Amino acid sequence: MEDSELSQHNEKRTRITVDIYGQQYSIVGDENTTHIRMVAAIVDDKMREIYAKNPSLDINRLAVLTAVNVVHDYIKLKEENERLKEKLKTKE
Amino acid sequence: MEDSELSQHNEKRTRITVDIYGQQYSIVGDENTTHIRMVAAIVDDKMREIYAKNPSLDINRLAVLTAVNVVHDYIKLKEENERLKEKLKTKE
Repeated sequence: MEDSELSQHNEKRTRITVDIYGQQYSIVGDENTTHIRMVAAIVDDKMREIYAKNPSLDINRLAVLTAVNVVHDYIKLKEENERLKEKLKTKE
Repeated sequence: MEDSELSQHNEKRTRITVDIYGQQYSIVGDENTTHIRMVAAIVDDKMREIYAKNPSLDINRLAVLTAVNVVHDYIKLKEENERLKEKLKTKE
């Protein structure tokens, strides 16, 4: 079983095994188990959602496209974040 | 070649082929090609970063763990976002 680290800034490390798209992953991080399980559930959901639209995808391409979609969402959120910070600056 | 859709709210669709971790993907979205290429480059970078730490990972597990890491980052950013919105509310 392989491990993935969610972050490296704390000494209280949590290690749990989660199921994503029928495979088990051992995740290590300084977040609590609820957070790690939520992250795994979101990835699992997104993979199933993309699979439903593209049933011919193999798991490897499916996982890459899931990462693509999440990075896209991340960038959009990052842009909103910058706008909020700018707005806050003008209010100070 | 499979397609992935980045969003579905616009009529100006962009379709480009990007290379992620040695494989080609056809991405369809209403974002410009620069945005789509940036998203692909981020996923490619993250996969290589996680691979460097876990060279025994196969591409399928690597891609899933990349998605896990990005969702984790997304949730952290979402939390910051909510804090910024709350802060803005108190300034109004």
